[in-house]
Amino acid sequence: MQNTHDDVGETAERGVCEAITRVFGLLGKRWNGLIIVTLLDGPARFSELVRLVPGLSERMLAERLGELAAAGLVARDVDGGPPVSVRYALTAQGEALRPALEALEHWGQEHLVSSSAAP
Amino acid sequence: MQNTHDDVGETAERGVCEAITRVFGLLGKRWNGLIIVTLLDGPARFSELVRLVPGLSERMLAERLGELAAAGLVARDVDGGPPVSVRYALTAQGEALRPALEALEHWGQEHLVSSSAAP
Repeated sequence: MQNTHDDVGETAERGVCEAITRVFGLLGKRWNGLIIVTLLDGPARFSELVRLVPGLSERMLAERLGELAAAGLVARDVDGGPPVSVRYALTAQGEALRPALEALEHWGQEHLVSSSAAP
Repeated sequence: MQNTHDDVGETAERGVCEAITRVFGLLGKRWNGLIIVTLLDGPARFSELVRLVPGLSERMLAERLGELAAAGLVARDVDGGPPVSVRYALTAQGEALRPALEALEHWGQEHLVSSSAAP
């Protein structure tokens, strides 16, 4: 029951750290990464997001936008109109993902797209 | 049926590009990101990976390692022994994810861990 053994410390050190575990708790759920990447180009309406992310259903988008909003990455931006217009935008916290997502995209271009072109 | 309308071009431009779609096809599956992050610290045996990634079952790890190997990110490293020892290691392609994953971890430390500490 004691938590002061050296073994425990070593395991924790090599084990996956809290920050990256939480990151993949978000980005390791289908659609979340692609929704954020799409919003990096600017705010978008719900119907635009459905169109811009191939395969994403309306039900799933609504669920994911709720999760991303709860995590503080996406905000609803309501223009009172008329007509009322609702768009979804990245918060500063979501926007801060840009360098990491650009690095992932760069890796994908180099290692997934080109490698799959070769036999 | 023609694919030369300006509209189509614009949609494709704003739409999520192939590279990042493929990246999240891999990293947007639960456990894949955490397995890669764990292997960034060095090769590990199957049993070590089960221990180092909390919540990951043996069945799921076997499935994910197969997928990551098929995608060319992870390789089985067999030491003929005796005793025979099998370890899993990142390939050069997997290792090339390091900068992007470090950027994600940095973002997580700044925006998920510290923000959740505050009320």
